[in-house]
Amino acid sequence: MVNIGLLGFGTVGQGLAHILNNKSEATPLKDINIKKILVRNLEKERKVKVSKDKLTLNPQEIMEDKEIDIIVEVTGDVDLSYRLVKEALNNKKHVVTANKALVSKHFEELSLLAEENDVYFLYEASVAGGIPILKPLKDQIRVNNISRLRGILNGTCNYILTKMTDEGLDYGQALREAQGLGYAEADPSSDVKGLDTLRKLRILSTLAFGSAIREEDIICHGIDKLLALDIKLLKEREMVIKLIGEVVEVDGGYQAIVQPKAFKDGSYFTMIREAYNTVSIEGDFSGVLNFYGPGAGMYPTANAVLTDIIDCVMNIQDKKNPLGNRKLENKNEDIRGKYYIRISNWKDYEVDLGGVIEEKVFEDDKDFAIITKEVRLSDILNILEGVENLALVNLED
Amino acid sequence: MVNIGLLGFGTVGQGLAHILNNKSEATPLKDINIKKILVRNLEKERKVKVSKDKLTLNPQEIMEDKEIDIIVEVTGDVDLSYRLVKEALNNKKHVVTANKALVSKHFEELSLLAEENDVYFLYEASVAGGIPILKPLKDQIRVNNISRLRGILNGTCNYILTKMTDEGLDYGQALREAQGLGYAEADPSSDVKGLDTLRKLRILSTLAFGSAIREEDIICHGIDKLLALDIKLLKEREMVIKLIGEVVEVDGGYQAIVQPKAFKDGSYFTMIREAYNTVSIEGDFSGVLNFYGPGAGMYPTANAVLTDIIDCVMNIQDKKNPLGNRKLENKNEDIRGKYYIRISNWKDYEVDLGGVIEEKVFEDDKDFAIITKEVRLSDILNILEGVENLALVNLED
Repeated sequence: MVNIGLLGFGTVGQGLAHILNNKSEATPLKDINIKKILVRNLEKERKVKVSKDKLTLNPQEIMEDKEIDIIVEVTGDVDLSYRLVKEALNNKKHVVTANKALVSKHFEELSLLAEENDVYFLYEASVAGGIPILKPLKDQIRVNNISRLRGILNGTCNYILTKMTDEGLDYGQALREAQGLGYAEADPSSDVKGLDTLRKLRILSTLAFGSAIREEDIICHGIDKLLALDIKLLKEREMVIKLIGEVVEVDGGYQAIVQPKAFKDGSYFTMIREAYNTVSIEGDFSGVLNFYGPGAGMYPTANAVLTDIIDCVMNIQDKKNPLGNRKLENKNEDIRGKYYIRISNWKDYEVDLGGVIEEKVFEDDKDFAIITKEVRLSDILNILEGVENLALVNLED
Repeated sequence: MVNIGLLGFGTVGQGLAHILNNKSEATPLKDINIKKILVRNLEKERKVKVSKDKLTLNPQEIMEDKEIDIIVEVTGDVDLSYRLVKEALNNKKHVVTANKALVSKHFEELSLLAEENDVYFLYEASVAGGIPILKPLKDQIRVNNISRLRGILNGTCNYILTKMTDEGLDYGQALREAQGLGYAEADPSSDVKGLDTLRKLRILSTLAFGSAIREEDIICHGIDKLLALDIKLLKEREMVIKLIGEVVEVDGGYQAIVQPKAFKDGSYFTMIREAYNTVSIEGDFSGVLNFYGPGAGMYPTANAVLTDIIDCVMNIQDKKNPLGNRKLENKNEDIRGKYYIRISNWKDYEVDLGGVIEEKVFEDDKDFAIITKEVRLSDILNILEGVENLALVNLED
């Protein structure tokens, strides 16, 4: 029997308990026991029942339990979790986590610490929810150089964009609908401003490119300023907007960005709808590989956590630090492309787009929209400095 | 250093040697050495160079070499390979193969034999070429019950159908184009009649459902009787035809079929174009997971073989037989659906479709095409018995 100490008992933790409760006879799940659960409230009513004596308010009860082999961290917290995960690794307990903020912030340190202690540090559920992507990616990078990685990594944004595209909703309406269905939180800013996508991209790309690509190395534009007008104007050109996280290797370095991007309707990324996610990688030998599945949700995420737990139990991943030690240079300054730009209240600004316009798309008293020639993103950002209400959408070649 | 004995030195074997030659410094590839290669001709000119003293005509030189740890079987042969693979497993050598015919024919026996000898029997490259699907599938079935598995598993058929759909080519023209590009062999029958898809489906579904689903348990209809007319008539209804292998679990059993299937244009499977493949699985906790990539090709296939070799070297898969011991009943007799049926030279036959027609789609002196109501497939096959030149295409709900 392998004993688990669960840190947190929210949606994912309860999903995990539910699966184990309902498959208590299946191999190898029958050998996995949730021994203790760290909670903030012992009395709270929860959907999934566990015996009360498993619950504790005191993390040290779990940390110091010598019978607990694996710490499963499924809180939303970073600071306490960081302390506890470090302590667990130092105590030679395996760690499985679904916490992308934690992994993103301390990826290199925790990966190394796990290797030093010869234990597992696994985080499949931290990226793209239920999609098995990190383990296949680790397999691929043993053979392949990855030249490009990109994905739709945030279900909230993808749900909002799908509704705006299909039903012509404005951003605010689509957001409220997403909140009503539980796809978006009361404060959606980390989703809609791109931070959640950025963290997942940081984890994926640091693995894929064998070089530390940190949060601050990634340009980040969200979807919260997009208007129904932007969706409509691009739809008239048979293009659909998605929030894409993308890293490419370029000569001697990499370019990393989270941004709204418009694809020809019917192409792969436009097929990823509602709260689904996808990750696409291009290896020199593998070719293009795409992975698709639910980006979040109680059971898909708990399922991903559980596959990591099983890998610890069965000892079927490599315990060596999977992060490479290449030092790729950040070349974000050289990012080039064609862009759709819409400026609202454009008469209030003195913006000189004269040299970059390929085509004027729309103009009325309030809004002004263009498609640029191929330009440097940094030049466009300079020109647009100070403009508040705008859309900037990269156009896929 | 891990020594490999390579059985066969065709496209995949040479791809493997090329990758190892070109990444001779990379970890863990630098520890992998191709020690001997079984060929049929020592003098043949090959694209990828290896030292001549590695080549042998005598399999026993490889089988009896105690320094060889892993046998990599990349021939197209079944009988000799079966004998050699069995001998290798019994000699406690790991076996990696790309040979779907071999795996399909002897799946249960070889899986068990590997477990008994505590060595690996891995075959990632045998299904869907470069797509990492079997290892993720083995991970998923430890937690999930799979309710449906389906895929586009043959690049040749998919290339032909893509050309017929995009360019209005007739089957023969599209086939010749595929042959010209090396996507189809001179004798394409095992591809176009569905046998290649069937073998891959047999492997995937036996793993996924934990019950032996053998070649003879799967209904098999190919694409070789489809006409440009069929593609056109369905295109007018905004539907696109793909060759789909599909197994679903139904009450107490399963239904397994390879057949042309028409999907609404723009839906997922219609996005899989040319020689690409995809596999889609639905687990009770994972939800729908789709995997996409190149279905064949020198480097993608060699890459898949190499990830298996690395797993042997690093000992990071389970050596236990992954096949379950459920005994699901074959319920193919109960398969129901709506179908597009086209009969050529229809006036030559006395076919009574009266009871099943939902809509007549086309009629001229030569061809007659209908859409059925929802019907039992076995009833339709009875009605159509003896009709030679026909199309039978399942319509996705």
